[in-house]
Amino acid sequence: MTLTAEQTQEIEAARGVRHETRRPTVPALEDMLFTATPVLDHGFVRVVDYMGDDAAIVQAARVSYGRGTRAVSEDRGLIRYLMRHRHSTPFEMCEIKYHVKLPIFVARQWIRHRTANVNEYSARYSILDREFYIPSPDQLSAQSAVNRQGRGAVLEGAEAARVLDLLREDATRNYDHYVEMLNEDEQGQKLDPGRQGLARELGRMNLTLNAYTQWYWKTDLHNLFHFLSLRADAHAQYEIRVYAEAMMASVEAWVPIAAGAFRDYRLGAVTLSAQMLGLVQRMLAGEAVGQAESGLSKREWRELMQVLGRGDDA
Amino acid sequence: MTLTAEQTQEIEAARGVRHETRRPTVPALEDMLFTATPVLDHGFVRVVDYMGDDAAIVQAARVSYGRGTRAVSEDRGLIRYLMRHRHSTPFEMCEIKYHVKLPIFVARQWIRHRTANVNEYSARYSILDREFYIPSPDQLSAQSAVNRQGRGAVLEGAEAARVLDLLREDATRNYDHYVEMLNEDEQGQKLDPGRQGLARELGRMNLTLNAYTQWYWKTDLHNLFHFLSLRADAHAQYEIRVYAEAMMASVEAWVPIAAGAFRDYRLGAVTLSAQMLGLVQRMLAGEAVGQAESGLSKREWRELMQVLGRGDDA
Amino acid sequence: MTLTAEQTQEIEAARGVRHETRRPTVPALEDMLFTATPVLDHGFVRVVDYMGDDAAIVQAARVSYGRGTRAVSEDRGLIRYLMRHRHSTPFEMCEIKYHVKLPIFVARQWIRHRTANVNEYSARYSILDREFYIPSPDQLSAQSAVNRQGRGAVLEGAEAARVLDLLREDATRNYDHYVEMLNEDEQGQKLDPGRQGLARELGRMNLTLNAYTQWYWKTDLHNLFHFLSLRADAHAQYEIRVYAEAMMASVEAWVPIAAGAFRDYRLGAVTLSAQMLGLVQRMLAGEAVGQAESGLSKREWRELMQVLGRGDDA
Amino acid sequence: MTLTAEQTQEIEAARGVRHETRRPTVPALEDMLFTATPVLDHGFVRVVDYMGDDAAIVQAARVSYGRGTRAVSEDRGLIRYLMRHRHSTPFEMCEIKYHVKLPIFVARQWIRHRTANVNEYSARYSILDREFYIPSPDQLSAQSAVNRQGRGAVLEGAEAARVLDLLREDATRNYDHYVEMLNEDEQGQKLDPGRQGLARELGRMNLTLNAYTQWYWKTDLHNLFHFLSLRADAHAQYEIRVYAEAMMASVEAWVPIAAGAFRDYRLGAVTLSAQMLGLVQRMLAGEAVGQAESGLSKREWRELMQVLGRGDDA
Repeated sequence: MTLTAEQTQEIEAARGVRHETRRPTVPALEDMLFTATPVLDHGFVRVVDYMGDDAAIVQAARVSYGRGTRAVSEDRGLIRYLMRHRHSTPFEMCEIKYHVKLPIFVARQWIRHRTANVNEYSARYSILDREFYIPSPDQLSAQSAVNRQGRGAVLEGAEAARVLDLLREDATRNYDHYVEMLNEDEQGQKLDPGRQGLARELGRMNLTLNAYTQWYWKTDLHNLFHFLSLRADAHAQYEIRVYAEAMMASVEAWVPIAAGAFRDYRLGAVTLSAQMLGLVQRMLAGEAVGQAESGLSKREWRELMQVLGRGDDA
Repeated sequence: MTLTAEQTQEIEAARGVRHETRRPTVPALEDMLFTATPVLDHGFVRVVDYMGDDAAIVQAARVSYGRGTRAVSEDRGLIRYLMRHRHSTPFEMCEIKYHVKLPIFVARQWIRHRTANVNEYSARYSILDREFYIPSPDQLSAQSAVNRQGRGAVLEGAEAARVLDLLREDATRNYDHYVEMLNEDEQGQKLDPGRQGLARELGRMNLTLNAYTQWYWKTDLHNLFHFLSLRADAHAQYEIRVYAEAMMASVEAWVPIAAGAFRDYRLGAVTLSAQMLGLVQRMLAGEAVGQAESGLSKREWRELMQVLGRGDDA
Repeated sequence: MTLTAEQTQEIEAARGVRHETRRPTVPALEDMLFTATPVLDHGFVRVVDYMGDDAAIVQAARVSYGRGTRAVSEDRGLIRYLMRHRHSTPFEMCEIKYHVKLPIFVARQWIRHRTANVNEYSARYSILDREFYIPSPDQLSAQSAVNRQGRGAVLEGAEAARVLDLLREDATRNYDHYVEMLNEDEQGQKLDPGRQGLARELGRMNLTLNAYTQWYWKTDLHNLFHFLSLRADAHAQYEIRVYAEAMMASVEAWVPIAAGAFRDYRLGAVTLSAQMLGLVQRMLAGEAVGQAESGLSKREWRELMQVLGRGDDA
Repeated sequence: MTLTAEQTQEIEAARGVRHETRRPTVPALEDMLFTATPVLDHGFVRVVDYMGDDAAIVQAARVSYGRGTRAVSEDRGLIRYLMRHRHSTPFEMCEIKYHVKLPIFVARQWIRHRTANVNEYSARYSILDREFYIPSPDQLSAQSAVNRQGRGAVLEGAEAARVLDLLREDATRNYDHYVEMLNEDEQGQKLDPGRQGLARELGRMNLTLNAYTQWYWKTDLHNLFHFLSLRADAHAQYEIRVYAEAMMASVEAWVPIAAGAFRDYRLGAVTLSAQMLGLVQRMLAGEAVGQAESGLSKREWRELMQVLGRGDDA
């Protein structure tokens, strides 16, 4: 269970309220508002507030690029032009706030994106929940033999069982000892009246990196796209990618035109170096080019062939 | 006139629309939304969007500082505690977007605040309006004799008249020549079919620094308070201070508790150095302390006496 | 003349001093240190300090990506890999500080790059120099007919002469009136003892946007590359591009491997959208594809043909 | 031991090299360069590069505040003026780079300072060292009864012994299981040829938050002062405060005038709210003021009495 009964009730109460506003409002995102999308075994992502819509991007672009871009029919073209040519400031005019529950080792990657506002649950003040991320068996992968940062085949049989046991036992034991050292339970009730209890700011160090934390995380659309371009990418670690994918769904509801442009010109796009472009031009002119005469390293040639869908030529 | 008839009409149309939203909504700010507050002779400030309210600050603080801060009656106390102890991240959870029209020399000061999102009217793409800031006679001040960045007495008589004439004539002539060089009027219509017209990105260099520009400017509440603490301060140049004051009024409507805390703990607060604090403690103990034995420089002593409301002791 | 005699002397004095240091040091950049590279008619760029070198990028990457990347022969390969895959943080470990003299309208574009440290000459405190940018005749271009932000053919004959006269006369007259209103000369000497003189913070508003200002501008290598990718680009306005090009020369001296990687993978690179890549793959497979069946808009098709060096197919 | 023999050797080698430079150089900081200051049981801080000195602050301030601030004797006064009046940009002209080894739970606090450049050792790519922070007995404190984020009395006897045992055993066991799951030792050698070994990016989640990580951390002096004002403060958690204090020592060597100003006007300074200042003025005028008639809450009154060194009046 990712949400407590109390939290579910708070969300329902919040969703029941309606206000009148003059602000730009997006019905498709209002439908999702406050609702938690489950991610991993105990995590979630939920949108708790937003500012702006596709039209706010257009409005800002028009103040910058002035008169003559007024035809309503061109909104989509303008947003796609801005995305294609990396005119990023109009996208900064939209803002979104998420409430996220996530394992600490995922939070450590995520926080490296510096241009966001964050309020994280503090284990100096409060006691963390008794919840840890345990990978599902299909995500229990071996180290990749070819890629130092990647995953290889899924572990199986006794090795898989042993890993799952260790992860579960160590996280549980460490949490139990955390509570014992603090000498208070999750509600802050003292356990043994004869002991003082370790300071929370010290006790937390016994927790494992798969313990869950939570935070409010607020950013503008430009920086969110940057986050998603790195974290919804196939090279991102699975455990953060699933958060990025859940967030991408909320972006599709919120700013459908910008989200489409992002898919076409960023997520699905490739960059060719000066040398690679020259080779593509030669190939298009009918020349047969191989790695040897390409001037590219083997690694880069392999990357190029992959991009061009010619894996076999490598 | 700061707004064109077209703009006034657009604002009225926007204000007439109401949406239903689940988001936190602030009626007092909704009342002002889109409306332009006149500033200087042709400028304005208007709120065009916002996210969050006083409760959003409390919500974020509680995720950080955890259970046990739940009593609703303590919201005010919590916000004031956060402000007093410079716990700034909860204030970052609120966001506001302004549309501002302002002289270029004011924009040059303003843009130094880097943690905001900006889309400015571009004179590379568009033709600027024929509007320039001319100070009102009571703001036509001499250079201060004691303060290298300040103003002294108001100019009078022939000197004042001459300055106003020069400012008006030079700005007007330069604008006329700008239009002549571009060879197009404010609507982009070609003037003399026999001439090509200078590129806009070049022609703009003939404008004076009191020409008006405009932008969308969006920031979070923490950074807005930082901006206001510098620009609503008595040491700020009058021409930017009047913008800060107009924005402060919108903040009072938006987040009244946070705005009050800001007035008490930031705008009206003073900082005493270690040495100054030691002197105050000695004075409170009944000791008569003068500059000579204070260990402070004359300048710092004067600053301290001013802070303590003892101008005469200097 | 871009430098005063006093400045030239200060630079020579600074260049004459040598210190002993344990820090990474780059002889090729030391050779240039403090020297001013002239830009435009009165501007300059000069490097006044730096931190790090190509090896500092490698050092930071290795702390991140760990053991097993130690072979010295691979430094170049590692830096190029980082650039190609947009691993930007190791480039942030190098820092450079410039002293720049530039027209105000160029400064207004430049300052939009927010991740830099800036100290600008303040016309609230000081009197600006009597210098303004007047374009050379070969840069006096007409507005482009096809591109709303670009330049067309160079102006000629009477039109060119008139433009140059207006720019020169207006800037000069406005500067003269600025001095008259302040009632002090460039050295701060009072001119007419019978007048008070307008406050400097007000007088500056009479200056034109081609007046020169100066600043110290400090940034890390990653953000400098971002700046250069936008401002050394062919679409940048000529008047800022020449600064970017002068800075690019200092980067080549400073971090030659990173600068080469930047040229190949950023400056000379192109990005293909998901759709464009699909079209290139079809073309490489021998299919004849035209705009009609491409699914691209005319504008995007034109952009693709240009990238592929097939201008004629459009 | 905080440093391996290999690291000690690398540091000695680096310290043995001298280059000639034209850059501002600070002999007192050069003396420390690369040397590791031990912090906690296995951590360290060491300066690995720097840019600028006290004179660079003055140089930047003078470009901003112009002519007339030239007298060399006034450098100290100018820097202290800038600090006192929070003119922060000249301090941004100095930059420093640290190499730090620190427990993960300390790194999680530290990284919240967003305006720095960071390259952290990645446990996705590499295997972490077998080192964890175990508090010394005099730092093994109970939770404070009065302050939800603070420490109370030191634990003693059986309770202390039990806590130390748990911390040591849990961290060790979890590390051993981490190595077992990865199926490779710290040098990356495969342990059991019959097993695949879990991906590093997954295995790391079994580590405890007192495991040590390391990073390069680079920032400018203004942001470093902000970091130090929060983390060298008595309210900061001991485990991060000791790092801040070690860094403060390097700042004293590097920019002694700025460091002194920082001590006087920031670290040792207090801020009085508008209401508090009014009360101090009344007290100085001889009025006897108590909490009841002060208008302050009990909490604020207590804070004020503490600031004024009148703990007994509360």
